[in-house]
Amino acid sequence: MPTYTPPTEDQLFILHEVLKVQENEALEGYDELTPDLTGPVLEEAGKLGAEVLAPLNAVGDGGCELENGVVRTPEGFRAAFDLLRDGGWTSLACDPDFGGQGLPGILHAAAGESHSAANMAFMMFSGLTLGAYRAIHTHGTDEQKQTYLSKMATCEWTGTMNLTEPHCGTDLGMLRTKAEPRDDGSYRITGQKIFISSGEHDMADNIVHLVLARITGAPEGVKGISLFICPKFLPKEDGTPGERNGVVCGALEEKMGIHGNPTCVMNYDGATGFLLGEANRGLPAMFVMMNHARLDVAGQGLFQAAAAYQAAAAYAKDRLQGRAVTGPAAPEKSADPLIVHPDVRRMLLDQKSFVEGARAALLIAAEINDVSHRHPDAEKREEADAMLGLLTPVLKGFCTDKGFEMTVEAQQVFGGHGYIREWGMEQFVRDARIAMIYEGANGIQALDLVGRKLALNGGKTLMAFFEEIRGFIKAHEDDEMLARNFLSPLKSASKDLQAAAMYFMAEGVKNPNNALAGSTDFMHLFGHVLLGWAWARMAVAARAGLESGEGNAAFYEAKLRTGRYYMARALPETALRLARIQTGAAPVMDLPAEAF
Amino acid sequence: MPTYTPPTEDQLFILHEVLKVQENEALEGYDELTPDLTGPVLEEAGKLGAEVLAPLNAVGDGGCELENGVVRTPEGFRAAFDLLRDGGWTSLACDPDFGGQGLPGILHAAAGESHSAANMAFMMFSGLTLGAYRAIHTHGTDEQKQTYLSKMATCEWTGTMNLTEPHCGTDLGMLRTKAEPRDDGSYRITGQKIFISSGEHDMADNIVHLVLARITGAPEGVKGISLFICPKFLPKEDGTPGERNGVVCGALEEKMGIHGNPTCVMNYDGATGFLLGEANRGLPAMFVMMNHARLDVAGQGLFQAAAAYQAAAAYAKDRLQGRAVTGPAAPEKSADPLIVHPDVRRMLLDQKSFVEGARAALLIAAEINDVSHRHPDAEKREEADAMLGLLTPVLKGFCTDKGFEMTVEAQQVFGGHGYIREWGMEQFVRDARIAMIYEGANGIQALDLVGRKLALNGGKTLMAFFEEIRGFIKAHEDDEMLARNFLSPLKSASKDLQAAAMYFMAEGVKNPNNALAGSTDFMHLFGHVLLGWAWARMAVAARAGLESGEGNAAFYEAKLRTGRYYMARALPETALRLARIQTGAAPVMDLPAEAF
Repeated sequence: MPTYTPPTEDQLFILHEVLKVQENEALEGYDELTPDLTGPVLEEAGKLGAEVLAPLNAVGDGGCELENGVVRTPEGFRAAFDLLRDGGWTSLACDPDFGGQGLPGILHAAAGESHSAANMAFMMFSGLTLGAYRAIHTHGTDEQKQTYLSKMATCEWTGTMNLTEPHCGTDLGMLRTKAEPRDDGSYRITGQKIFISSGEHDMADNIVHLVLARITGAPEGVKGISLFICPKFLPKEDGTPGERNGVVCGALEEKMGIHGNPTCVMNYDGATGFLLGEANRGLPAMFVMMNHARLDVAGQGLFQAAAAYQAAAAYAKDRLQGRAVTGPAAPEKSADPLIVHPDVRRMLLDQKSFVEGARAALLIAAEINDVSHRHPDAEKREEADAMLGLLTPVLKGFCTDKGFEMTVEAQQVFGGHGYIREWGMEQFVRDARIAMIYEGANGIQALDLVGRKLALNGGKTLMAFFEEIRGFIKAHEDDEMLARNFLSPLKSASKDLQAAAMYFMAEGVKNPNNALAGSTDFMHLFGHVLLGWAWARMAVAARAGLESGEGNAAFYEAKLRTGRYYMARALPETALRLARIQTGAAPVMDLPAEAF
Repeated sequence: MPTYTPPTEDQLFILHEVLKVQENEALEGYDELTPDLTGPVLEEAGKLGAEVLAPLNAVGDGGCELENGVVRTPEGFRAAFDLLRDGGWTSLACDPDFGGQGLPGILHAAAGESHSAANMAFMMFSGLTLGAYRAIHTHGTDEQKQTYLSKMATCEWTGTMNLTEPHCGTDLGMLRTKAEPRDDGSYRITGQKIFISSGEHDMADNIVHLVLARITGAPEGVKGISLFICPKFLPKEDGTPGERNGVVCGALEEKMGIHGNPTCVMNYDGATGFLLGEANRGLPAMFVMMNHARLDVAGQGLFQAAAAYQAAAAYAKDRLQGRAVTGPAAPEKSADPLIVHPDVRRMLLDQKSFVEGARAALLIAAEINDVSHRHPDAEKREEADAMLGLLTPVLKGFCTDKGFEMTVEAQQVFGGHGYIREWGMEQFVRDARIAMIYEGANGIQALDLVGRKLALNGGKTLMAFFEEIRGFIKAHEDDEMLARNFLSPLKSASKDLQAAAMYFMAEGVKNPNNALAGSTDFMHLFGHVLLGWAWARMAVAARAGLESGEGNAAFYEAKLRTGRYYMARALPETALRLARIQTGAAPVMDLPAEAF
């Protein structure tokens, strides 16, 4: 079974040398983010991940059990959940008025990596809870906030997101779950929801379901959907769990992975629900939770790749097999370690350069998220919110597609052993696979990106992204090494992205399918530009670190070499994506449906 | 659970209109391959796959069981194996002197698709048997042939391949299994082998293990390895199974997929073995079996993709979700079928264009294989053998990498349902995954291709491949439609392949890592050129079909459109692969091992 080493040094480099969070005075709370705080926090977070959660990952793969409506989580999960709660890890970035510690989200994002990498299925319990927290925080009444939030910040009560029904997932306009108004202002919820992660379990005193349903007489389609709070136990006056509500787990799904988290069929049989936000405005309210979840899921893709990469790198340094073509590297041994072989290094560098680039990109996004909440200037907050909206589908789609691909490459490094359960590599693959599917399948992310986000604010947000990159290149192009290895490939990739956007504008008007046929290619193109930018920023910081003569020179050197690999071997994919995009609708649409 | 429809129409098109096998008079037995024979044979093969084997696929996923040394295969496997045997499917292309029907291998390859696509794990029992058949056929003494072959042709006795040991897989030079000579000419085999597919089971009267071991006093390394026949039951004088041999299954591996086939730890404890071929020449003898297995595995990758694609296409036409952006396609329904969405079509066309292209490529290879065995001219046989040697690693690596990727895309079409066991899509992914690993992990295929096969016959075989493509393009470039849509992209891809080979020649001399760092990219580049060529040949045949005014015009039209998709959207990947190759060793080798 793989052991797990938290990426603390890398995270501190990104926070303090790339983003220089401690110098960002405009953001409330960022001045606290000195290495004195972040170092110990990330160390402690890493300990919990490495020592408690990682050993439970294979255990969790054994699955949950449903008996008489009760779901038993895997052995050891409850105790670990107590440690997560008691360590304050769930409430880190929550509102101090409602049970939180009020620290910047970027710190929570960094701390969360070690937990999710170590045990993805386990971390879904709290991850979804915090999404629900945010939805209630944004749209709840004062009373609702008082009732639920502080208990959810600590995960004393957990949360769920109930959207999907058997006949509709993406197309929520078709949903049938009913909400009948009662005289007391509450609603009677009736219907069936499927694919509900953490829908029922034994780790919390209460489970707060956020449920999409249609109020009697509401319009058809998405404009008649409302969001309800539907707790497993109805809170009593004193805030403690009271009467059992009419919502039960009917079955657990047998699935490919994330067995440590119960995927539930939830049956609502006249359950009591409380309207959250406005009637018929449930979808936008749910999207507060959804957008939060999408960034979480982007992390899941990346973090499984990070954990799998570690294991693969360790195996490649340990396993003796074959000889280096240029002569024995370990002549005293019966064979050289796998890592002498160029093709093994290629696989490892694919992974390493993706993982480190995506880690930086996600923390860049976390900072933008903090700007959208913490900046004193409302205009800056709005711009940041729009930028996050633009980057969210890119991060979700790209990091989970690539993250999965990297778990497959990590598994490949193990040869036949990678296919065997006890080595733990195939679990990474099975677990990471879901991240491409849930919270909006990646095709939906691409559609959101091309169909909605490109035109956000009349295209101004996209322009701002390009402007950011242009400014960055300009500021550093005097450094010849940076210019050659990082800035020039970034410029070229960024041009490909602009050309693709131009193509969509020019040809999408004639036929929207000219844009939609290339949506996934565009998402990947954008993802590469984003990671290329992240790598270029890391290269600048690593250069500065080397020049300072302080810090870990070997770390900076490795950073530059890993970055050069990404720029030289991964980034050129943008040209292929552009070429595909420019073939337009015809290749995709020409074949009649019956010929498939 | 997915149903399965055999690709008979497509196979007949490739056999009779693309390859025109029935007109190939030089090859013994090809004159029999008229549609009168091939049609009914493929129909019947398809029936067995669709009606018997496909329904057992999910059953098989439940796994085999080991108790007291006995392995029980999944319910229904034994009866199905009898049908496979009794239908003559295993012996189709075997030598008539030793239990076979002597039909051309290409017919067996085509018939086998329906079986392997329907149930990959099940078909591993007979697949490995036929590989062992071939090794004994090539290297066995007359007595050995008499004893084993006719029983193995019918799979009355099955076969296995025993190479891997716990500490060595790829690097067989390290193997430790001992073979001590006995006075009667037999050997005492002692050691442990792992990852032995079909190593023990309840479906045959005997199991014939081919085992690599080192004879007492033999040189170290690969030059001291010999191959042995080590049957579970020692054959009696009358040819029936006699005394139980000292080889037992010690454990079954818990693995990611192919649960229907037992992956065994085999313990040899002074088992009696009989030398097959020459002493210390075991590796080349085993390679007869291995090369056969590699083409089989190439098929596994493709066939799982083919089965998964079918299911995905059916789902996309059936599942209602969302509306076409250009206006409702099924206004009478609550939503349009998924297939109206460009991104869903993109996923399906990725799969369809790969599956049909790779199917043609594998049948082209099967024909080359037949030339290598059946052509009257020895020189032609040798050339064909070399060409097959060149194409084998390309087909194994490319078809399994891509095949797996396509099962993942097929699963993606199902959204959340794709992750749930009962829909069967995740099994395709788990099963297909092994094909990238076993019979030489794909990195080893790439190494074989670049390190050995490119220089085969002083590069003449590679030149012959390019010449073949050049001649084909020249012969058809007057057709303006073909030239634009097929020949021009093929020419460009082929140029990329040549440029990559030139780069290896020029730079590999300076540093072999300049070639090895790009080996996997080269394998994929080559795979695309091969499929591009296969598609261009199909386009020529489809064109001719349309012009003839006979046959199924819709089929030919669909063929051309699917091919255009491949040429426009898949083939341009060759430029990316070339760009990566030309970055050489540095990006891959620069990072010191300790920095991983």
